[in-house]
Amino acid sequence: MRERIPVAVLGATGMVGQWFVRLLSRHPWFELVAVAASERSAGKPYGKAVRWIFPEEVPEGVRELPVVPPEPGIPGKIVFSALPAAVAGQVEEGFARAGYVVSSNARSHRYDPDVPLLVAEVNPDHLELIELQRRNRGWKGFIVTGGNCSTVQLVLALEPLRRRFGVEAVVVTTMQALSGAGFSGVPGNAILDNVLPHIPGEEEKMAREPKKMWGKLTPEGIEETGVRISAHCHRVATRDGHLEAVSVKLSRPAAREEIVEALENFRGLPQELGLPSAPKQPIVVRSEPDRPQPRLDREVGGGMSVVVGRIRPCPVLDWRMEVLGHNTVRGAAGGAILNAELVVAKGLV
Amino acid sequence: MRERIPVAVLGATGMVGQWFVRLLSRHPWFELVAVAASERSAGKPYGKAVRWIFPEEVPEGVRELPVVPPEPGIPGKIVFSALPAAVAGQVEEGFARAGYVVSSNARSHRYDPDVPLLVAEVNPDHLELIELQRRNRGWKGFIVTGGNCSTVQLVLALEPLRRRFGVEAVVVTTMQALSGAGFSGVPGNAILDNVLPHIPGEEEKMAREPKKMWGKLTPEGIEETGVRISAHCHRVATRDGHLEAVSVKLSRPAAREEIVEALENFRGLPQELGLPSAPKQPIVVRSEPDRPQPRLDREVGGGMSVVVGRIRPCPVLDWRMEVLGHNTVRGAAGGAILNAELVVAKGLV
Amino acid sequence: MRERIPVAVLGATGMVGQWFVRLLSRHPWFELVAVAASERSAGKPYGKAVRWIFPEEVPEGVRELPVVPPEPGIPGKIVFSALPAAVAGQVEEGFARAGYVVSSNARSHRYDPDVPLLVAEVNPDHLELIELQRRNRGWKGFIVTGGNCSTVQLVLALEPLRRRFGVEAVVVTTMQALSGAGFSGVPGNAILDNVLPHIPGEEEKMAREPKKMWGKLTPEGIEETGVRISAHCHRVATRDGHLEAVSVKLSRPAAREEIVEALENFRGLPQELGLPSAPKQPIVVRSEPDRPQPRLDREVGGGMSVVVGRIRPCPVLDWRMEVLGHNTVRGAAGGAILNAELVVAKGLV
Amino acid sequence: MRERIPVAVLGATGMVGQWFVRLLSRHPWFELVAVAASERSAGKPYGKAVRWIFPEEVPEGVRELPVVPPEPGIPGKIVFSALPAAVAGQVEEGFARAGYVVSSNARSHRYDPDVPLLVAEVNPDHLELIELQRRNRGWKGFIVTGGNCSTVQLVLALEPLRRRFGVEAVVVTTMQALSGAGFSGVPGNAILDNVLPHIPGEEEKMAREPKKMWGKLTPEGIEETGVRISAHCHRVATRDGHLEAVSVKLSRPAAREEIVEALENFRGLPQELGLPSAPKQPIVVRSEPDRPQPRLDREVGGGMSVVVGRIRPCPVLDWRMEVLGHNTVRGAAGGAILNAELVVAKGLV
Repeated sequence: MRERIPVAVLGATGMVGQWFVRLLSRHPWFELVAVAASERSAGKPYGKAVRWIFPEEVPEGVRELPVVPPEPGIPGKIVFSALPAAVAGQVEEGFARAGYVVSSNARSHRYDPDVPLLVAEVNPDHLELIELQRRNRGWKGFIVTGGNCSTVQLVLALEPLRRRFGVEAVVVTTMQALSGAGFSGVPGNAILDNVLPHIPGEEEKMAREPKKMWGKLTPEGIEETGVRISAHCHRVATRDGHLEAVSVKLSRPAAREEIVEALENFRGLPQELGLPSAPKQPIVVRSEPDRPQPRLDREVGGGMSVVVGRIRPCPVLDWRMEVLGHNTVRGAAGGAILNAELVVAKGLV
Repeated sequence: MRERIPVAVLGATGMVGQWFVRLLSRHPWFELVAVAASERSAGKPYGKAVRWIFPEEVPEGVRELPVVPPEPGIPGKIVFSALPAAVAGQVEEGFARAGYVVSSNARSHRYDPDVPLLVAEVNPDHLELIELQRRNRGWKGFIVTGGNCSTVQLVLALEPLRRRFGVEAVVVTTMQALSGAGFSGVPGNAILDNVLPHIPGEEEKMAREPKKMWGKLTPEGIEETGVRISAHCHRVATRDGHLEAVSVKLSRPAAREEIVEALENFRGLPQELGLPSAPKQPIVVRSEPDRPQPRLDREVGGGMSVVVGRIRPCPVLDWRMEVLGHNTVRGAAGGAILNAELVVAKGLV
Repeated sequence: MRERIPVAVLGATGMVGQWFVRLLSRHPWFELVAVAASERSAGKPYGKAVRWIFPEEVPEGVRELPVVPPEPGIPGKIVFSALPAAVAGQVEEGFARAGYVVSSNARSHRYDPDVPLLVAEVNPDHLELIELQRRNRGWKGFIVTGGNCSTVQLVLALEPLRRRFGVEAVVVTTMQALSGAGFSGVPGNAILDNVLPHIPGEEEKMAREPKKMWGKLTPEGIEETGVRISAHCHRVATRDGHLEAVSVKLSRPAAREEIVEALENFRGLPQELGLPSAPKQPIVVRSEPDRPQPRLDREVGGGMSVVVGRIRPCPVLDWRMEVLGHNTVRGAAGGAILNAELVVAKGLV
Repeated sequence: MRERIPVAVLGATGMVGQWFVRLLSRHPWFELVAVAASERSAGKPYGKAVRWIFPEEVPEGVRELPVVPPEPGIPGKIVFSALPAAVAGQVEEGFARAGYVVSSNARSHRYDPDVPLLVAEVNPDHLELIELQRRNRGWKGFIVTGGNCSTVQLVLALEPLRRRFGVEAVVVTTMQALSGAGFSGVPGNAILDNVLPHIPGEEEKMAREPKKMWGKLTPEGIEETGVRISAHCHRVATRDGHLEAVSVKLSRPAAREEIVEALENFRGLPQELGLPSAPKQPIVVRSEPDRPQPRLDREVGGGMSVVVGRIRPCPVLDWRMEVLGHNTVRGAAGGAILNAELVVAKGLV
């Protein structure tokens, strides 16, 4: 790839926005040429407008970029959206209409029948919806969305089992990191010496998104699958990395070694295509009794792998396991970048 | 009750031992007359031997008690055992043989067929095993055990549902407090910004203990019930209060209001007898979307109630809910004291 | 005291406001008759408007009080102000003008030359400023302010030393609790595995307030003392209780036992008058090497005592010690209530 | 440097030992050829014996090394000692006697008059003590020690000021990370929602070590300097990175820009020699109001730089600042490796 593709980030000063900036600043295919955020920040150089959350400095080259309003006309062919859901819907449509490729982390368009809800290793064929989307809406550009952070890692971890044994039902309890709520989303006063047993909307997303991700592509859109997901969502005092305790009911019997083998050997289209953000091994299996742990395992594969451990029989459903994923990388910015890489590799940009 | 019954605590310097001391120091029926601990502490006054974990001072009257070795002959009719499992088995037997009533928090004798595994509100009829136990072993005294902390609160919360609708299967994910591992059990380095997805032996206890607690009393002992419990156990950065995310399959259909009503109105024998440590309401139901929370709800009923919230349908089993209990009170020292009160009220001391 | 004095809380839904409500709901002299907060909450019953932060329920009798706007005309003779500084200045003046006694926790009027900056045990004579204040401003009511939380506990702990040996200079490093910033003031993401080495405005307040508190009353107002305070302020991951490491230079030599004796035996006017919120012992000295600790010692004296420990020589100044105080009780709501009690006892209401 | 020098780590399974292993496994000059630990671990491959604390795997090449007892005869020319103080004294002497170069992190020999207490940028001339040491003791090898973690970062940060303006007195309050106490040194129960205001022996070390580090080399050994250090030491809930609030009295007046300039431009012998572990910039100055912060700044310079911020006048002494250093890198393993590099560069191995 000779020239890098110009890209922009919408909502660039928030937590996920900053992850986009960080990951894009060293990207081999993409060149970050614009950072957009709400009016309050507009006009300032990004390095002044942002309350940078990472140890290293704001990347050179981005530091001086002026923050612009998130409106079509800004430079870039691809825009990555970390906008809050309240505004993402309309703004993203405006960009798609104007010819941009939108890779979104917002939930606004996830359930639109002609918008792919994409986990690059899981349902890359859903990109065919783009044609339908353009036809339906008369847009030059299009929108691709990624799933909710806690869904993405679950669906990715279960994908090899679904392919080989079928997945009928899942009971999953999440212990989600603070970063999933944005930088200021959870007060220290609320979480110190505490667990919050509720994350608004999260259980509903976890129940519904997999039905579409695992759904069948038809000429009219995605036919949702009937998988049943029962999610219990919690916020705990970790910084990054969602841990999920999973009980799963399979369609066909599976032996433990078959499960381990299926997970470890799983490779998706991003791995076949050698996409820059694709981890070599999407699913890493640990055999120690006390892994995965958020602090120790969240960075595996640059935060793009999911780590699975404690695979053992379930006395109620069929199998139990622990699944860990980096919520702001695989579950947000990194996932959306991988989706965009797939879009590029498919020749859609 | 005129004169208070003299009691002793075995393992009095550990975390659960200190809870025993704290709760007994203001008990209307029991008078703490001896504190026993390992040789290292023996001889010192309790106030010097203990690394007291509570804000208030070591209770007067206990402070000056000399620490004695945990051997029969020490004063007291009832002994409360907070001994580590490695030594509890034999030591407790020695006390029972010598005529003491042993109310134990250790796991050593939990599965003995002639030893009650008692949650006072749930299976008070299991106290009839004592006769069998004495006969079997030729002891003057006897042993009564309480369950594992994470089991006790689960079984108590589900008891009203079991009685009214039947409980067939449970998938439960625990988020357990640091105190459950003893004061030094979990290093700060291990838990800061982390969740530990494994507690040795805990899932096995949660799977097995309810089978006995809910088992049927027969002349030969307890006939275990067939309930299936799938537990996923975690350690999180909270001080006290185990939170459990529960999915339960019932034998008969239940409406939400029936469940709430069954939980809120549940009263057991300790409530009927007005035992001093019995909470007026064993199960408190919260209707807010984000309760129970460990820091806010663990002290309800003096730590002896369990708090249930987020009662909602489960797409995989039947119902979901969150259950919170104070692990070192209801799940350990407080529970064992309540058990002893029941023993006294039944005329067994 | 026959009839309780009707009082109101301004800013009743915030963290300090809730502490006022909690403490006043069981007050022997004061009856909480009105709760005021910003327009957003106005009209709702307090129990609905507030996001209650305490384990117990919103006190009965307050739960149903309608939230009113913080404007003169609301019931109550005394108003306790937990308003944010941005609005406190004008609103408090309005109330004083209308004849209310205002006991404020806000910083707006702390440095007004005719407004007492009161720590009830330290400078009760400064209440004489009230006459000047009323004369100056033509008000029927008046304003009394309490100090910044981290100042109050420092000045109280040092008062016996100042009286007996003189205090010339202090180097103090604070490790302040999350609650000091309000419920949402410090994001969990900012403080987990971290210390924040800056609290805006705090070091300036700690440097200046003691000069006035320890100042001399003159006909024209307070003549500030020349004490030099060098403060290093930090936010740490504790919920309540500010810990302060103090090095102090005295005017005259002092022996360790004299210091201990001076601190332990210190009693102020609130103790002499037996004011309801006055702790029996304003300063509690601990002799253990590792006390005071926030979690263990913040509740001493119902949160109204300060706890001092580790009294030892300082190789640079004269003496070193650790000082702990409950920031939202002694350092905020409790302190302002004690101030109001003093005002009442002085016959000023 | 053609061939790498064979080195060993004593106490290789502890926290500092693991840091040694991690840092040495990728070292350009040193080749880790032996790992020694107490008998319990001896014989096992290192990868099995250690409870590895880092996210990445135990380095290949070390994983299979058998753990040996810490006794002379093991391979290696240089041994890095992370032994507990209780045994370090004698064991290190044995190694030095047998001809090894010992670079120690233990406190046992820090005050020996013929043993350098070395901070490589600060007192490299103290290496001349080695000749005296060998002569005194008749050893073929020798011992070099590093300082206590909290001392090292303080002395390094103040060194440019000492050289240029003189340092007379320091009041320093530390907020030290959990890792400084070893992996299991601080129970989660002790530190959650808490600050510990005491670290045994730490204040004494901080008061004394700088006197030697800044002492004058004489034929008889080091003549200690008269600097007065008043330390207040605390443990806080951070994982790595000690934060220190410093007030310093200088011998000569200094302007703020002179201080900043002196700190930023400071370079020591390790920088001149280009030693592999020497950070390019030993002292990094931040100008933001709320830096340094442990989580954001501890990794600067690979953990070998100290970060200074909030430089401002002190109303009691002369200047105030915040100093942050990585306690287990600069303050322990990394510092000892840098010391060894200096020894090599000086031709002493």
